[in-house]
Amino acid sequence: MTSSDNTERLVHVPLGERAYDILIGPGLIGRAGGEISTRIKGRKAAIVTDEHVGALYLDPLMDSLQTDGIEAVSISLPPGEKTKSFDSLTKVCDVLLEARIERNDTVIALGGGVIGDLTGFAAGIVRRGVRFVQIPTSLLSQVDSSVGGKTGINTRHGKNLVGIFNQPDLVLADTDVLNTLSEREFRAGYAEVAKYGLIDKPDFFEWLENNWKEVFSGGAARIEAIATSCQAKADVVVADERENGRRALLNLGHTFGHALEAATEYDSRRLVHGEGVSIGMVLAHQFSARLNLASPDDAARVEAHLKAVGLPTRIDEIPGELPSTEFLMDAIAQDKKVKGGKLTFILTRGIGQSFVADDVPASEVISFLEEKRKK
Amino acid sequence: MTSSDNTERLVHVPLGERAYDILIGPGLIGRAGGEISTRIKGRKAAIVTDEHVGALYLDPLMDSLQTDGIEAVSISLPPGEKTKSFDSLTKVCDVLLEARIERNDTVIALGGGVIGDLTGFAAGIVRRGVRFVQIPTSLLSQVDSSVGGKTGINTRHGKNLVGIFNQPDLVLADTDVLNTLSEREFRAGYAEVAKYGLIDKPDFFEWLENNWKEVFSGGAARIEAIATSCQAKADVVVADERENGRRALLNLGHTFGHALEAATEYDSRRLVHGEGVSIGMVLAHQFSARLNLASPDDAARVEAHLKAVGLPTRIDEIPGELPSTEFLMDAIAQDKKVKGGKLTFILTRGIGQSFVADDVPASEVISFLEEKRKK
Repeated sequence: MTSSDNTERLVHVPLGERAYDILIGPGLIGRAGGEISTRIKGRKAAIVTDEHVGALYLDPLMDSLQTDGIEAVSISLPPGEKTKSFDSLTKVCDVLLEARIERNDTVIALGGGVIGDLTGFAAGIVRRGVRFVQIPTSLLSQVDSSVGGKTGINTRHGKNLVGIFNQPDLVLADTDVLNTLSEREFRAGYAEVAKYGLIDKPDFFEWLENNWKEVFSGGAARIEAIATSCQAKADVVVADERENGRRALLNLGHTFGHALEAATEYDSRRLVHGEGVSIGMVLAHQFSARLNLASPDDAARVEAHLKAVGLPTRIDEIPGELPSTEFLMDAIAQDKKVKGGKLTFILTRGIGQSFVADDVPASEVISFLEEKRKK
Repeated sequence: MTSSDNTERLVHVPLGERAYDILIGPGLIGRAGGEISTRIKGRKAAIVTDEHVGALYLDPLMDSLQTDGIEAVSISLPPGEKTKSFDSLTKVCDVLLEARIERNDTVIALGGGVIGDLTGFAAGIVRRGVRFVQIPTSLLSQVDSSVGGKTGINTRHGKNLVGIFNQPDLVLADTDVLNTLSEREFRAGYAEVAKYGLIDKPDFFEWLENNWKEVFSGGAARIEAIATSCQAKADVVVADERENGRRALLNLGHTFGHALEAATEYDSRRLVHGEGVSIGMVLAHQFSARLNLASPDDAARVEAHLKAVGLPTRIDEIPGELPSTEFLMDAIAQDKKVKGGKLTFILTRGIGQSFVADDVPASEVISFLEEKRKK
């Protein structure tokens, strides 16, 4: 699980005619033009980014494309979850059509999950699909949203309720850009890294317990952790591209996490996605212990590690008042992973032994949450 | 090619896990609930229709669904091409989410091509795809847009430039509803029926020459013509689902036709799609003769048949002034079938012998059009 040098890693996602590569390593934005032009025929590109990320990386990316003979336009959107809307989608499609992006030309998402989800959706519907390259710039998007092909926008009914499955043609995870993330943002992404260990890779979780400081400080261990995470997600996606079964495991910690995000009205000052997942994963392990499925020691071990890296692990760490348990239950039931009214949770039999439980009694969840909130 | 009774026909479209059936025959709206409930698990449906079609068929469809235990909501949109917009798409998605349509529930398109294209798009993006049933109510949509999975909307840059490939789960082509179409609308749909003969079925074209009156008057010949057309389109789509090669043949007559539609500003009082295709098919045969690819006799035979059924076959039959040949050429070049700047046309070596030509010199097209406009 260790790697002695700092060189690039490649994860191949073998999805038949939708197969693609994920490159992970330093300096990839500066080499984007070359990597794209060897894989994609068209000589035109459109970059979609947000104002924060664009200020840092749009110029170097444009330069790299130009060097390799790719003519590019760009659109910069406001940062934040509100950008995942029908309005932005309409605007991005208009820019792509105005630039005469054709089927063999490239749309590039330069940014975090919001930009990736929105751009992947637009790239999949303009001319019923043009080429799509992800350049994820947060740890979260490098290990999660840039792998798997889920794209989408939010509506007043909830998050990600409108979208398509659209696999990218190439993902460039430039690990240099992670140096400009805030500690809090890096930690939030790390929650998803730890998740892959907790799903079905107990050795990887143990490696993280021993090496997390090196992952945070950068270099070979960081590249290793990202590559292992991408490979883990790719394995799940290949087994279940359209999310009918096994892919649900990726939601470990997410049902509780999403409910907590809804409870804080998606206010990132109070809770960001990865923090919700961190608390959610601890709750999932504690809830599994309560149902006598797993040992309480495993839940304690998960909590200790996430706490060590500086992530929140308890509901009462969320600043401000939280709504009633009834509200949380309602948010859990509204979650799109609910099928035919039954409560579906990802539970576990121990570290790296998670599984899909699709008939969890609501009464058990309610009393568990009530208990946890009193602590 | 003849059929002696009036019974239903079934065309199976074998697209692997996206395979589906097209049922063709009388009384299918009244049996929709039964046909859907044997194929689709969910007990909820949402019907998208337009105000004209809805007034005639929404009640019987709702009744049929209710009889088979399917709870349905509906939305009725203004008729016409303007409904294929981002605004309508947003509205339809909102209605589907409000009704809590889940992945195994059904979205039903009840209408012509506009409703089918818009609804198929919405059904493919809500929750990244829910079940989708087409009930096409025009001859054109029964033989063309309801087969093949192309969905989409228009933008200020052109028609159908935003959309997805989304195969339906079931198509119910109720031939009774065609009795309420105007003669002009039926004829326009008939142009696409004739097209399948001209692409690669000379026997079918000959059968149409001998039996078109029976097709127009209804009954077994009509069902036969629709089933043969659906089968022809299904064959092409199965060979080339994502339109990379052979599927382009379906555009016979459409490059000229679309340019004429643009030239009349899509004013249906002057020219509807099928009429443009009729003139376009005659032009494609005449142009092929001019390039010494086909005999002028074949062009004359095509023109004679389309004229006999009452379709326009010459540019000068379009009422009102037309813009310059330069405008027409620009519309041809803007067509999304242009790849890398070259002019792609569907040409022919004779009745039922069409082929894709992707390097037609613009100068030849210009002088041909100039000549045809003088006549």
